[in-house]
Amino acid sequence: MSDELKQLSKLWTDGGGHYNEGIGRDDIFDKLREECGVFGVVGHPDAASLSYYGLHALQHRGEESCGICTVDREQDGVFNYHRGMGLVKEVFDKDKLDALQGDRSIGHVRYSTSGGSGLANAQPLVFKYRDGDLGIATNGNIVNAPEIRRELEANGSIFQTTSDTEVVAHLIARSPKDFVSAARDALQRIIGGYAFLIMTNSKLLVASDPHGLRPLVIGRLGEAYVFASETCALETIGAEYERDVEPGELIIFDSEGMHTERYVPLERRAVCAMEYIYFARPDSDISGINLHSARKRMGSRLAIESFVDADVVTGVPDSSISAAIGYAEQTGIPYELGLIKNKYTGRTFIQPSQELREKGVKMKLSAVRKVVEGKRVVMIDDSIVRGTTSRRIVNLLREAGATEVHVRITSPPFANPCYYGIDTPDRKELIAGSKTVEEIRQLINADTLTFLSNDGFTEAVGGNEGEHNRGLCMACFDNDYPTPVDFTSDKSCSC
Amino acid sequence: MSDELKQLSKLWTDGGGHYNEGIGRDDIFDKLREECGVFGVVGHPDAASLSYYGLHALQHRGEESCGICTVDREQDGVFNYHRGMGLVKEVFDKDKLDALQGDRSIGHVRYSTSGGSGLANAQPLVFKYRDGDLGIATNGNIVNAPEIRRELEANGSIFQTTSDTEVVAHLIARSPKDFVSAARDALQRIIGGYAFLIMTNSKLLVASDPHGLRPLVIGRLGEAYVFASETCALETIGAEYERDVEPGELIIFDSEGMHTERYVPLERRAVCAMEYIYFARPDSDISGINLHSARKRMGSRLAIESFVDADVVTGVPDSSISAAIGYAEQTGIPYELGLIKNKYTGRTFIQPSQELREKGVKMKLSAVRKVVEGKRVVMIDDSIVRGTTSRRIVNLLREAGATEVHVRITSPPFANPCYYGIDTPDRKELIAGSKTVEEIRQLINADTLTFLSNDGFTEAVGGNEGEHNRGLCMACFDNDYPTPVDFTSDKSCSC
Amino acid sequence: MSDELKQLSKLWTDGGGHYNEGIGRDDIFDKLREECGVFGVVGHPDAASLSYYGLHALQHRGEESCGICTVDREQDGVFNYHRGMGLVKEVFDKDKLDALQGDRSIGHVRYSTSGGSGLANAQPLVFKYRDGDLGIATNGNIVNAPEIRRELEANGSIFQTTSDTEVVAHLIARSPKDFVSAARDALQRIIGGYAFLIMTNSKLLVASDPHGLRPLVIGRLGEAYVFASETCALETIGAEYERDVEPGELIIFDSEGMHTERYVPLERRAVCAMEYIYFARPDSDISGINLHSARKRMGSRLAIESFVDADVVTGVPDSSISAAIGYAEQTGIPYELGLIKNKYTGRTFIQPSQELREKGVKMKLSAVRKVVEGKRVVMIDDSIVRGTTSRRIVNLLREAGATEVHVRITSPPFANPCYYGIDTPDRKELIAGSKTVEEIRQLINADTLTFLSNDGFTEAVGGNEGEHNRGLCMACFDNDYPTPVDFTSDKSCSC
Amino acid sequence: MSDELKQLSKLWTDGGGHYNEGIGRDDIFDKLREECGVFGVVGHPDAASLSYYGLHALQHRGEESCGICTVDREQDGVFNYHRGMGLVKEVFDKDKLDALQGDRSIGHVRYSTSGGSGLANAQPLVFKYRDGDLGIATNGNIVNAPEIRRELEANGSIFQTTSDTEVVAHLIARSPKDFVSAARDALQRIIGGYAFLIMTNSKLLVASDPHGLRPLVIGRLGEAYVFASETCALETIGAEYERDVEPGELIIFDSEGMHTERYVPLERRAVCAMEYIYFARPDSDISGINLHSARKRMGSRLAIESFVDADVVTGVPDSSISAAIGYAEQTGIPYELGLIKNKYTGRTFIQPSQELREKGVKMKLSAVRKVVEGKRVVMIDDSIVRGTTSRRIVNLLREAGATEVHVRITSPPFANPCYYGIDTPDRKELIAGSKTVEEIRQLINADTLTFLSNDGFTEAVGGNEGEHNRGLCMACFDNDYPTPVDFTSDKSCSC
Repeated sequence: MSDELKQLSKLWTDGGGHYNEGIGRDDIFDKLREECGVFGVVGHPDAASLSYYGLHALQHRGEESCGICTVDREQDGVFNYHRGMGLVKEVFDKDKLDALQGDRSIGHVRYSTSGGSGLANAQPLVFKYRDGDLGIATNGNIVNAPEIRRELEANGSIFQTTSDTEVVAHLIARSPKDFVSAARDALQRIIGGYAFLIMTNSKLLVASDPHGLRPLVIGRLGEAYVFASETCALETIGAEYERDVEPGELIIFDSEGMHTERYVPLERRAVCAMEYIYFARPDSDISGINLHSARKRMGSRLAIESFVDADVVTGVPDSSISAAIGYAEQTGIPYELGLIKNKYTGRTFIQPSQELREKGVKMKLSAVRKVVEGKRVVMIDDSIVRGTTSRRIVNLLREAGATEVHVRITSPPFANPCYYGIDTPDRKELIAGSKTVEEIRQLINADTLTFLSNDGFTEAVGGNEGEHNRGLCMACFDNDYPTPVDFTSDKSCSC
Repeated sequence: MSDELKQLSKLWTDGGGHYNEGIGRDDIFDKLREECGVFGVVGHPDAASLSYYGLHALQHRGEESCGICTVDREQDGVFNYHRGMGLVKEVFDKDKLDALQGDRSIGHVRYSTSGGSGLANAQPLVFKYRDGDLGIATNGNIVNAPEIRRELEANGSIFQTTSDTEVVAHLIARSPKDFVSAARDALQRIIGGYAFLIMTNSKLLVASDPHGLRPLVIGRLGEAYVFASETCALETIGAEYERDVEPGELIIFDSEGMHTERYVPLERRAVCAMEYIYFARPDSDISGINLHSARKRMGSRLAIESFVDADVVTGVPDSSISAAIGYAEQTGIPYELGLIKNKYTGRTFIQPSQELREKGVKMKLSAVRKVVEGKRVVMIDDSIVRGTTSRRIVNLLREAGATEVHVRITSPPFANPCYYGIDTPDRKELIAGSKTVEEIRQLINADTLTFLSNDGFTEAVGGNEGEHNRGLCMACFDNDYPTPVDFTSDKSCSC
Repeated sequence: MSDELKQLSKLWTDGGGHYNEGIGRDDIFDKLREECGVFGVVGHPDAASLSYYGLHALQHRGEESCGICTVDREQDGVFNYHRGMGLVKEVFDKDKLDALQGDRSIGHVRYSTSGGSGLANAQPLVFKYRDGDLGIATNGNIVNAPEIRRELEANGSIFQTTSDTEVVAHLIARSPKDFVSAARDALQRIIGGYAFLIMTNSKLLVASDPHGLRPLVIGRLGEAYVFASETCALETIGAEYERDVEPGELIIFDSEGMHTERYVPLERRAVCAMEYIYFARPDSDISGINLHSARKRMGSRLAIESFVDADVVTGVPDSSISAAIGYAEQTGIPYELGLIKNKYTGRTFIQPSQELREKGVKMKLSAVRKVVEGKRVVMIDDSIVRGTTSRRIVNLLREAGATEVHVRITSPPFANPCYYGIDTPDRKELIAGSKTVEEIRQLINADTLTFLSNDGFTEAVGGNEGEHNRGLCMACFDNDYPTPVDFTSDKSCSC
Repeated sequence: MSDELKQLSKLWTDGGGHYNEGIGRDDIFDKLREECGVFGVVGHPDAASLSYYGLHALQHRGEESCGICTVDREQDGVFNYHRGMGLVKEVFDKDKLDALQGDRSIGHVRYSTSGGSGLANAQPLVFKYRDGDLGIATNGNIVNAPEIRRELEANGSIFQTTSDTEVVAHLIARSPKDFVSAARDALQRIIGGYAFLIMTNSKLLVASDPHGLRPLVIGRLGEAYVFASETCALETIGAEYERDVEPGELIIFDSEGMHTERYVPLERRAVCAMEYIYFARPDSDISGINLHSARKRMGSRLAIESFVDADVVTGVPDSSISAAIGYAEQTGIPYELGLIKNKYTGRTFIQPSQELREKGVKMKLSAVRKVVEGKRVVMIDDSIVRGTTSRRIVNLLREAGATEVHVRITSPPFANPCYYGIDTPDRKELIAGSKTVEEIRQLINADTLTFLSNDGFTEAVGGNEGEHNRGLCMACFDNDYPTPVDFTSDKSCSC
């Protein structure tokens, strides 16, 4: 072991004390975080209620704040909105929903940054401007937002949020053109990965970024249109999936109905790979591919690429269960419940004291002794970010008696930060950015470690149908970003 | 009784059903409402805690939302803030206060308008602009805000609140001048009655409108400066009263210390009469005059102007107790507790059903039968707005057995709406705007009714020491507004 | 100053640090505490709603828990109940009230002791016994409860509360007699001061202790009967006062209607003096005497007994305002607002840190500088318990500039603990139990100090109409307890 | 279809309107409900914190109320306790846990019945009796409690709860014998299935019913003893599993340490079959058998007994996932995620309106269209109670496009109610009590339906090692109750 590795290793050993510490910090599941989900309705009298159920289905994309804004066209297009900190079911009650009259709505779930600005950043953002009300809900990140913001501030703009989304509102309000033209200009100006829902008293716009980085689908519920980050939200409200919003597509609802256009020509389709691997719900489809099935294929493909003889296969819950079953089906090694997550744990949970943690109190994730004791275990996980989480889970299995722990990761090594809306650590904290697989294996204390190959992943999600990995953004694996990125900027999402 | 009166009378009788209707609407105390209170600290390490106690002392000026913003100059002037719906004691807890590090603060209590925008309008407003952070807390109203806002929107500004205060932030941010010059320009541009606290990462401004319409005082706590809408907030935190902020005064705290200047020449001092009569706490002083004592003098003067033989004097709680004692002292008629208010009633109270109300359930204000039964009662109140409240209270006394009810009002007839931060109904709803005293007497079902004369009031608060009623704004009584007003605009306060 | 006094004085000076410490402990208003209030309805379809408003009117008698139990005779006499920690308006909402169907109810407000048992002790207590359901609400204290409890436990009874009231339930349940006979036996067995409401599926009993120590009145609302600790609760719901429940009276509602009887012969009427002086609301009447008026007479009588020349009279809010007005009326010295209490302060308020307290932060009670500065002040208060509170208030006045502070107490010296339901400290903590008036004066830092005489008090509340102080219990002043008391027992109320 | 079936069928069709109605009623998961979980600690300074994490691990056994009682032997054995409505993480916070000093504790999670008595029934129950404090936490049901209760009431006992557990407290308190002897007598007197934790100021008892119907295990954490309903709670706190408490075993902790005895001779071991099938967490072990593995074997065995050709296997989440994987492994038909449950749904969720439900809004359970569309589906579930739930899930799959739905149940038909602590409907509501398999198949709209055989189940959980199904209670399947039962009594659990 190199000196550097020893040092890192020591840091981690000492750092065992950080296990689950802190408020809202959840080290044992220190996963990459999706930043937001959006949900919109056009033309349904129960727009707010549908948004409630739709956002609830998207809750996994943002647990910390949420909001719904409706426009009541029977009352001259008046805006009604409510936002709050917490889960959809906590922020809204019947009275609040009933107050959200209108047949159009845009809604949002998000992870907020800590601090006093939490609620201020909750979306949909709502502004008053020259032509009336303006509401915006976004999932994603604008790479050049800081530059645009500096320019706007120099011209006297004031900002109430730290969200990139506010930049777009200013661009629209300052344009001398009509609303739709102004919005089109703004979309052409910004660079990044995003799904936008923008609403005024009389119009509603839906837009996807030029590469389709962030998912966005269209559904129909009778005559109404529904827009959602994932298809699972359509299923929940009984809407029928129609199609994905196209990269660079701008959909306009105005007094003449629905129009669609491209605001930029398609250069390269680049759907976020991590949506397939980890973020989206297993019952959602992306580009027509069910994610549970895709993840099973990742597991299956991983088994082919790097079989290891073992007694049981187990997945890190909840995200890697599908892949683990695929691995087990492929290899014939039985899938067992070697790790279990307590479903009742949440934000308000009291963390064990350092002393109790040292004594082994763990209330979020447990290894099942009866299942793993004396066994050679294949542990399937979706990714390794810093490595600390993986090391802890491997150690949980060893403490429960596993004789061997073989870690299999259903994605290629995550080596590069995301600039399109996923909250990733700095490049230097990404373990795969600087370590070899063997070094990582040592650090996480595994007997063997393999990652899924780029090709294996690409095939699992439908084959290499076009150039650029069939339209995938795999920049986090291959450093091939579909847009210019500003490596100096704060890359964390500000949707 | 004229037909019109009959009609009104009928409306009221029928309208009895509206007793206590609506959320946050409290007809039995359907009083004029002060709109806001402000509190600021410069140079004290416990700025947030002091603001907590100071705002608590100003709670009567705004019960619906509150907020504190601090600047931490040891952390490069970072802003910390928290705002919420509810009383000061409900919105803040120890953790929230502890997070508000810094030795400068601006704080606010306010009445919010109903609807989803309640929290968005909570102050201090906090913005990001070219030079960093900008925080504003205001008490008052800007008469020409709608015009300025239209102009700003035409130039591409977006607004997140319906508050006049946001207009000032935009004026400052759009100015090419330095912050202090920009703020001075903005103050010269706006017309109205206001007390402003404005803070950036390095500076803090305090300003009173050109006529001193809204109260604002300076206190000292050791080396620290404290600013508050009323002196009671100084007492609460143990600060020493120094002086009132002068009309048209702008106080600047920057790296060189404290400076003061006049941003407009003094034309006419015009302190709001209703602050003396009703709004300010009885233990506060305005222009050096204690309000309990002033109100006692109003009662005493009223007794001289319109004595009536009676058995007991009673005041409508809480605001008219002092005046009732003054009336009793002057006349020798014993002061008794003929009316009592339940101190536990508040926002969350369940209103009695229509049926129970008809059966006499009243949980906010009661007449004390033992005190008034078979008695001739002098009932002292501070003002008559629509007349409905007075009628109800007179009827409570009659139902409890009062044989005569003589209503004495400690102010002249309130006939004109306020444009400077008091939430008054439209002119046509002000009963004194269209009825004679005799007509009002009939409508409120009193045996006799008199109002305090303009001179009587002026003397009670210190004599007619200068022109224009010793520096009072009595526009609500005499229609003599100290500024131009836009009679077509929405006059309700938007501090 | 004696050594002992010096020591005490030092304790107090040091003890300044205890100012307002603890949860629910409010030293600046460290007053005697009434323990409970009861409210019952017989024969009204809105029994629960009436109880809500009635208990709200009695909220001052117990702010820490409350409850309502109804019997629904249309549903075979099923019991419905709800209890909770907090104010009436906090514990009940519309849904909870709606669930309390029935035309009979018993309700309760109480001060709870701290600790986990708070809710368990909330009343009405509800039990299942041989004949069905049994509900009890009590105000008062049973002197011999510990002895009875020991006897019951020896025979195998288990207790879920620390309340005396549970003893009565056991006595009833263990009796071989029918319910009414069993209850009568139980009342004859217990010794103390109490007002009882007892309910079964088919019957409701109302009882006052043999001396009428705790107040209890009967009102009528149409055909319905209402029972309440104070008349103010009758006024609130529009009920008409009928009469006080007599000492030793047992009222029975059964299938044949209402019956009344004496369960013990009347030996001595002994209404609690402190109800007149401090506990009951000023708009309530006891024995037909309005308490505001009675307290004015106490103030007036005090002025006659111990006049002192001064500039202003002020009362300690809220309880001593009436007496202060009486004192002022009698002497001609003007009544002024020298002390003011913040009405928004409550349980959840954050206490100032020791450092801020030392700097003078006070958010519950303030002296009004403008009123007292340079003045000789007569400060009226209702009682002195430990003396610490009085000392603090005197010092507040001095710090605000009072040149002399003359303390006048509207009751005789409180020298003996109460065994009938008032939460008094141990005898040795009662300052009047061991100090002379002059010693107390020194300790509280007053210029002069006088107490109302026993005769003065008696006259103020209606004259010495019978033997034993016209039917008053003045044991706390004269040590003449109307019942045997167990000086070794825990005297604190357990209603 | 018989007329009766038609009628039932109609009821269900109409009854679609009852979908998810009511508070806390969750028809789509209208499963049998485990009633409670218990957790105890002896000899650990962090007893309360360990209980918090332990009860959290047992949360699935009771989501509606919980409580912890500790005894602080350093403070003369004083009891500290807290109980509340809600999840463990909601009821306890750091302050509440810190107040629960002591090195022994008993804790409880439970389902409460609706109504005002919810909190009153929360356990541990705590009483005062002759010898001090008595705390009891139970999982299970006492068959002859009604009879004992009638007897106790006839002798004057009063009850505060509707819980059977209170009966045991009375039996102990009324016994002339010492505490342990009294408790032993009580255990011999009662009939039923239960796990008891009983605590006094100096002693702690642990007892299992004579047949071991309800699970209870012993673990060690250093020197401390831990008792829990399931082994998963031991894992969570890092305790080591020692053994199951034996049927009829009484464990006593007193001043001399730990003793164990049998209070009745072992006649027949009869562990509840439904714990294996449904209630216990998959990572728990019963009698040394891991439940995930056992459930996989049930699925595997079911595949052998009743194979059907199909395209996908899916399990009803969460309880039937293990069995579905077993079925898939056995048959080679791929396991897919055909049904998904929203993990964020909970008590506070707003139910869709009838209209929205009809339009297909479903926010708890969804079928995954992409997975089941055009497919023949094997749907694995653990049991059929009334049949309505199964019918709804089958229909969800059909609406999502499944061409065939083959239902496979991992238990024999549930035909007889439970008298030992499982909340089952009346016998006549149990569909398997009166219908044939073919009739049930029709009613739930399945293509085929089979149940696991008794032998298949018995083998899956470890083989028929002894008489009486290797020590299982399968009365719900075979009507062979291990104790006398009172078919007329209310069989629902009252732990």
